[in-house]
Amino acid sequence: MKLYANEISSATSRVRIALAMKGVQVDIVNVGILGDGAENRQADYLGINPQGLVPALQTDDGELLTQSLAIVEYLDERFPLPPLLPKDGAGRAFSRSIALAIASEIHALVPPRVAAHLARIPGMGATGVVAWNRHWILEGLGAVEARLAARRTGPYVAGNTPTIADIFLFPQSINAERAGIELEQWPNIAEIMDRLRDIKAFAENAPAARR
Amino acid sequence: MKLYANEISSATSRVRIALAMKGVQVDIVNVGILGDGAENRQADYLGINPQGLVPALQTDDGELLTQSLAIVEYLDERFPLPPLLPKDGAGRAFSRSIALAIASEIHALVPPRVAAHLARIPGMGATGVVAWNRHWILEGLGAVEARLAARRTGPYVAGNTPTIADIFLFPQSINAERAGIELEQWPNIAEIMDRLRDIKAFAENAPAARR
Repeated sequence: MKLYANEISSATSRVRIALAMKGVQVDIVNVGILGDGAENRQADYLGINPQGLVPALQTDDGELLTQSLAIVEYLDERFPLPPLLPKDGAGRAFSRSIALAIASEIHALVPPRVAAHLARIPGMGATGVVAWNRHWILEGLGAVEARLAARRTGPYVAGNTPTIADIFLFPQSINAERAGIELEQWPNIAEIMDRLRDIKAFAENAPAARR
Repeated sequence: MKLYANEISSATSRVRIALAMKGVQVDIVNVGILGDGAENRQADYLGINPQGLVPALQTDDGELLTQSLAIVEYLDERFPLPPLLPKDGAGRAFSRSIALAIASEIHALVPPRVAAHLARIPGMGATGVVAWNRHWILEGLGAVEARLAARRTGPYVAGNTPTIADIFLFPQSINAERAGIELEQWPNIAEIMDRLRDIKAFAENAPAARR
């Protein structure tokens, strides 16, 4: 299989963590994303994926799978061990809901293509974009912390082993720290992140810092 | 089970369609969402769900499930018939990827709480918010159409029966039409929507028009 990836993309990081947890080897093809200064690497990729977003996983049958959560669920169904979701229905829903809260209520509002569109609003400027990103990261991780405080029972987000929720929490929290946001304001998130940093599959697949 | 819902919420519409397809009855509790003029109905709900977002499904065990896709996956696992995902791995990933593209690349950028935050940007105004919403709906549904054109084989998004992808496509497309966007520019979407409008579980659970 071939993973179209970008080193600064937190959505790519999610898929790389899942692959590492499963012990699945793939070919990594780094492609540019808007604003990372590598638009020339992007041009070839548009022939494969017209939307140009990463990650995308090409299977050995030639199917191109997009959207990080759909790819992670695919990997979990195809390579069942270790499982990336709890066994019970409510636990599965909880793990998925944290992943989705991070994907839809934080990451969706702050990727490079949204920042580029925002920057074109008169009066917004680079400072306005930074404030926008900060607003949604603070609000979104605050909401995640409230859900964790209400429901968490084990050492990770949803039990005794990392699940899809932890895979989504890790790169988003790393990016929050890089934006100068202290995770200590959220005790559950900070504690889980300390555990995840000690796991090789997570530590080795964090998103790279933006240049 | 009890569904905390709002009549104009397209995320609520997704869960209602899934419940109707499965033939599962739940108690519907309508709560206000930001900007619908019913903030008083919202106050009680914040005690149950501090983030205040809908939909949320309360199970008979008292678990509160959030995030529409997590709820729909929960329903599909608990009530297997009719299945809401294809059987093959690549088909499942495709159906989920379309649902996620709609959730993360369109809906996440245009809900009332994002519009309210945008409207506070100096010079943005109501016109700016309308243009913002229109931009993401056009770009996002255009990207969905490209994926459908490349991969679709059956009468619905991912095969011979409606799946999670159709459940997400339906309310988003209805809202696009209400914003004056013609679906005919996207032949695959327009054709699928014509089929979905004839299915009672979809037609009876569309989001209500904003007053």
